[in-house]
Amino acid sequence: MRKGKDQKLPVLAVDLGGTKIIIAIMSHQGEIIARQSYNTLADEGPQAVMNRIFSSIEEVLSQNNLSLSQLSAISIAAAGIIDIKNGVITEAPNLSGWHDIPLKSIVEEKFKLTTFLINDADAAALGEHRFGAGKGLSNLILLTLGTGVGGGIIINSGLYLGSSGSAAEIGHMIIDVNGPKCQCGNNGCLEAFVSGSAIAAEAKSRISQGGKSSLIEMAEGKIENITAEKVYLAAGEGDSLASEVISRAAYYLGIGVVNLVNILNPEMVIIGGSVASMGDILLEPVRQVVKEKAFPLLSQAVKIVPARLGNDAGIFGAAIFALEQ
Amino acid sequence: MRKGKDQKLPVLAVDLGGTKIIIAIMSHQGEIIARQSYNTLADEGPQAVMNRIFSSIEEVLSQNNLSLSQLSAISIAAAGIIDIKNGVITEAPNLSGWHDIPLKSIVEEKFKLTTFLINDADAAALGEHRFGAGKGLSNLILLTLGTGVGGGIIINSGLYLGSSGSAAEIGHMIIDVNGPKCQCGNNGCLEAFVSGSAIAAEAKSRISQGGKSSLIEMAEGKIENITAEKVYLAAGEGDSLASEVISRAAYYLGIGVVNLVNILNPEMVIIGGSVASMGDILLEPVRQVVKEKAFPLLSQAVKIVPARLGNDAGIFGAAIFALEQ
Repeated sequence: MRKGKDQKLPVLAVDLGGTKIIIAIMSHQGEIIARQSYNTLADEGPQAVMNRIFSSIEEVLSQNNLSLSQLSAISIAAAGIIDIKNGVITEAPNLSGWHDIPLKSIVEEKFKLTTFLINDADAAALGEHRFGAGKGLSNLILLTLGTGVGGGIIINSGLYLGSSGSAAEIGHMIIDVNGPKCQCGNNGCLEAFVSGSAIAAEAKSRISQGGKSSLIEMAEGKIENITAEKVYLAAGEGDSLASEVISRAAYYLGIGVVNLVNILNPEMVIIGGSVASMGDILLEPVRQVVKEKAFPLLSQAVKIVPARLGNDAGIFGAAIFALEQ
Repeated sequence: MRKGKDQKLPVLAVDLGGTKIIIAIMSHQGEIIARQSYNTLADEGPQAVMNRIFSSIEEVLSQNNLSLSQLSAISIAAAGIIDIKNGVITEAPNLSGWHDIPLKSIVEEKFKLTTFLINDADAAALGEHRFGAGKGLSNLILLTLGTGVGGGIIINSGLYLGSSGSAAEIGHMIIDVNGPKCQCGNNGCLEAFVSGSAIAAEAKSRISQGGKSSLIEMAEGKIENITAEKVYLAAGEGDSLASEVISRAAYYLGIGVVNLVNILNPEMVIIGGSVASMGDILLEPVRQVVKEKAFPLLSQAVKIVPARLGNDAGIFGAAIFALEQ
């Protein structure tokens, strides 16, 4: 396999998510040369998704008149528990059928090019640190609130990966040991309160129990059509059930952030992901809970802010990870 | 103030705890030259305790025929929330009346010698990393279970202090948001389940509610005499109420360690402090809970072990902190 010796060559970055595959080419100065988005179609299983990654990479290269020899590396950010030493996706709740898949070596085998594999929220943390909300800081934590809840930790200006490369599974911090069941099998994880799915589930549950809400109309009478985004829209229109559901999520997110502040004393907590696009209706209560419940010396030291790079934080981070190796 | 330029000179270390003040002199090779223990008598208030620290330092120096000019620094480990940049003890739950006391500058003023001030559990983590259970590891977490619960984090082989120098307030990680009140004012902190005080309180509460236990006899009929140590002894003698109380504490400690493993993916979690002297009756259930509830890749990577340095971890760590600056 060719090792990209020439540090001046660009990196091809892949963000493999449950819904989208984003492919981008980044120059060594950090400029995005190309960017293309594809549907993951995760239901088709790992082999089909990998084939889609392969053909998409070839398509992006060809559209930009680039060959593999003009790249220094491929770098993949994936939603899942990554064994970084061995380049294996061990578990991936949002990628159906992905268990112990050695994606790094599969891609290296296919393209004969050095390949990196990291967790997507870790990549997003690195992206936000180098180019986004956290530029120049030493210590920060990023949370991505989407279908699930991911996390990334920057310590001493570097991505903190832990001993297996899988640190920052912040969504599975237990904050209510007797709380609702989480996807992971435990009870009362942060994710079980603040993910998009959890927010939608809470609204559905309140309506099923007789709660009145404009959400029913918004979902055309079909309770299963309620999403976190619809809850946010309804709250913005003054729907009180929807507002209460968001307040509840914000409160629990606040508790999770209190724990992170007390444990890691970061300078910043960045909240990203689709749910974070709710903005201050979510973040302002989080700041209040942290002010109230974290130690004053620590809560005064932390800024709680929205992410800046949006959906591109993952590809930015994946590319930077490879460029900085 | 004289800056101890000569790296070859020993450090005088102070461990300021709620019960004891330990003073030691450590050579630059890490040998303890002298060690002396005093009662803190914290009830007498900060000024009296500081005077006791001063006279104890002078006593230890004089007993060892040493003068201040033969030291490179003084280094203090204290139980409390330390503003490390400014050398201030901002809060100290086990030191009555200590609020915003600039101990570093007070000691520097008194002895005209460079002084360091860090949290006692941070110091213990550093001690265990350099000389104890965690030698040679990159990432570890130490928990001290005593009257309260303290924590220290080693990352990339160095003490992680966070942005204000107060990281690792692990005892105040909320694991049951609707749980029992903690000393800090929040509900369901780890400390509220696993500190010595919490273990004794749980036994007292079960007995008050009519639970039968040999603890009543052991405490000579006075329920207020029940301590965590007595609960441990009773459990060892087959008392089922006492065993259940310890199992409960071990379960919650396990939940706390699951969170730390999922967030920080450490190679080791070291459990120290007086409560940890219970040994495997406490640690074995913790290992089981972690195996069951943390992500397999992460739980397989971590060893959960007792501390090795006992009460001296704090002074070791304080001395090392100064020697390594």
